[in-house]
Amino acid sequence: MVMRVQVDLICIGSELLTGLVENTNAGYISRRLWSCGIPVREQRVVPDSIPHIAGTLRESLRCSEVAICIGGLGPTDDDLTREAVSELLERPLCLDREWLLHLEQIFAHRGRPMPPANRKQALVIAGSRLVNNPRGTAPGAIIPAGEQRWIILLPGPPAEMVPMFEEEILPFLEARCAKAKWRTKLVRTAGCGESELEDRIKKTVLPDGLSLSYVASGGEVLLQLKSCGEAASELLERAAARLRGDLGQYIYGEGEETLAGAVAALFTERRLTLALAESCSGGLLADRLTDIPGSSHFFKGSLVAYSNEAKQELLGIEAGLLEREGAVSEAVALSMARSARKKFNASMGAAITGIAGPESDLSGKPVGLVFIAAAGPSGERCRRLKLPGSRRAVKERAVQALLTMLWRMMHAEEQ
Amino acid sequence: MVMRVQVDLICIGSELLTGLVENTNAGYISRRLWSCGIPVREQRVVPDSIPHIAGTLRESLRCSEVAICIGGLGPTDDDLTREAVSELLERPLCLDREWLLHLEQIFAHRGRPMPPANRKQALVIAGSRLVNNPRGTAPGAIIPAGEQRWIILLPGPPAEMVPMFEEEILPFLEARCAKAKWRTKLVRTAGCGESELEDRIKKTVLPDGLSLSYVASGGEVLLQLKSCGEAASELLERAAARLRGDLGQYIYGEGEETLAGAVAALFTERRLTLALAESCSGGLLADRLTDIPGSSHFFKGSLVAYSNEAKQELLGIEAGLLEREGAVSEAVALSMARSARKKFNASMGAAITGIAGPESDLSGKPVGLVFIAAAGPSGERCRRLKLPGSRRAVKERAVQALLTMLWRMMHAEEQ
Repeated sequence: MVMRVQVDLICIGSELLTGLVENTNAGYISRRLWSCGIPVREQRVVPDSIPHIAGTLRESLRCSEVAICIGGLGPTDDDLTREAVSELLERPLCLDREWLLHLEQIFAHRGRPMPPANRKQALVIAGSRLVNNPRGTAPGAIIPAGEQRWIILLPGPPAEMVPMFEEEILPFLEARCAKAKWRTKLVRTAGCGESELEDRIKKTVLPDGLSLSYVASGGEVLLQLKSCGEAASELLERAAARLRGDLGQYIYGEGEETLAGAVAALFTERRLTLALAESCSGGLLADRLTDIPGSSHFFKGSLVAYSNEAKQELLGIEAGLLEREGAVSEAVALSMARSARKKFNASMGAAITGIAGPESDLSGKPVGLVFIAAAGPSGERCRRLKLPGSRRAVKERAVQALLTMLWRMMHAEEQ
Repeated sequence: MVMRVQVDLICIGSELLTGLVENTNAGYISRRLWSCGIPVREQRVVPDSIPHIAGTLRESLRCSEVAICIGGLGPTDDDLTREAVSELLERPLCLDREWLLHLEQIFAHRGRPMPPANRKQALVIAGSRLVNNPRGTAPGAIIPAGEQRWIILLPGPPAEMVPMFEEEILPFLEARCAKAKWRTKLVRTAGCGESELEDRIKKTVLPDGLSLSYVASGGEVLLQLKSCGEAASELLERAAARLRGDLGQYIYGEGEETLAGAVAALFTERRLTLALAESCSGGLLADRLTDIPGSSHFFKGSLVAYSNEAKQELLGIEAGLLEREGAVSEAVALSMARSARKKFNASMGAAITGIAGPESDLSGKPVGLVFIAAAGPSGERCRRLKLPGSRRAVKERAVQALLTMLWRMMHAEEQ
């Protein structure tokens, strides 16, 4: 069956309304649906209350074909999502004997009897489809809710929700809107500001029948391409190829790729290695790189040298240089990059030194002043940055700037 | 005037519904309101659409006294929050000449004329109070919206929203519910699981008239204390003191404190210093510690040694030991901690080595196996952990476990 599918997301849990538990589920599902061309009409966060959940669902299904509820499927008294849907649809909750058996086996495997409270996790709305959860005790559900309307229930813990959404829910939704949906492509750029990028793209001839919008996020500018109809995928491919042709020096990837991932891929492909010396970034760049599976193939390590003493003793930066130029200087940044390269025996060394704030160091140099440097087989580079924002923002922007520098150095060599 | 205040949060922006821009505002405001005893009834994220924004506000004000709208105050065509409120309340938008002058001055200061589009940022709803924004071009607004009802407008960028909320909006709301509101206290624990903590707290005699709930978040268990009425603050203080008396070895702080912050405070107070050797955590612990302003007073640095070569060359771990025990072993973890202490000339050295996944190393040891160690003036400690979850989850849990170990070592010495 071909239809339009628009989705409302309803996150359920009083703890989300106190802000003490971070709500990562709404962003994740929205991003994944968007990338598959399925629009989210609205996100809501509501408390564990039967009338509130039922009322929200009623409003949602007036406008959207699908309401996805996340959370409230646990065994405790305040997990009420199943009960709210039962009340809204005026359909009873029935015991799924198979899931009950499965639950009893889970607890038997853990060597203890199933608490009576968990029994309610085997209750399903009459006429609905239970969705398996290999990672927890709460199953999901796909519940028909009237003419072209569905309610989908997912467990709240991301470790259970994400695989269930990817393996069961997304294919279900895609099958229902295969022909009507739009297609999207996300092109990721770094090293060029939004307005400059806009000026450059104005000169690029993009095919008709697609829309382009800009999203600035975490020091990068993302290009959202969107198109509809039979030829959509082909149009998007052509547009992306044109953009790569004209703006290749700024485009590092597409979709879910990250800049750190793109840098890692270039190093790994060319069998080159990288080592760092970090001062004000305090290990954040090493953390980003080691988040990538397989980073041990190219990443040798980082010396987080937070004191001048450590810069001298462990990186071998000359005391005279530190005194003359100060730790936050071009000369010291370059010296740190060279030293990282040598000490870790890496093909390339890179370094960050700066003043993250909130106060300056004894030198009186301004907060936000940062030098980034790289030293490799094809030469050296250094940049002086003046970064705005909080201590954390300065760290993040410095790391982003150095990743951009590394990517562009590697990319330029490719040409 | 004393009244009950319940708040709805409405985040406005189509980009939030694509999941490409992270929504940190809803969590931030919810957390701050909760800590001040002002409940959030619901959070919503809606697109830049006049009927959608106006319809959401109408529903919110039926139930809640205050609706806070965040975003949609920019100068572009799709910034429509002001217009939606004007339509809902049937009140015109009037030009605020003072803010217009201020905007022109901002642009004059930047050395360019004000784009005509920015003029609309000086439009305010008739009869409302404009709220100054020293960090951007969009002012906030406090708009009376009927008997005991208010609409509050805040800009979307967190760097502008947060200070405006803290300086202007929170005091406005607190003044309106000073006597009716409840009080809360958040007690933060580490190193004890939720169910064990619950068993222990059952033995603690807490004063009557308060509620206690548990929130597990990021490897910690938070205790939410809540009370109402004249004696609320005193009751909460007494309850917190009892908890500290009975569970002091697990309670590291209150409110917005972090475990890293508590460790940093202990080191700084005692004029001790810390150095790290990190393998599988890849710099994450150094990153956490250097997020704390003033961390250079106690934190010497970290050697992120991601390869065996770096462990030998830079940390001086014996090749024989690495071969015999493997890099992921108690002996190597302790040796790394000792070496970090010595190399950085610190009072205490600490180390993490493990297998973060998704695949094991050549040793065939299981993913999630981690050793943490610390070596200081009063002795050494080492723990073997088996951590579940993704690569990132293993890194975060290992860091949390080492911070807990450091806090308990320092705390035990205090006794």
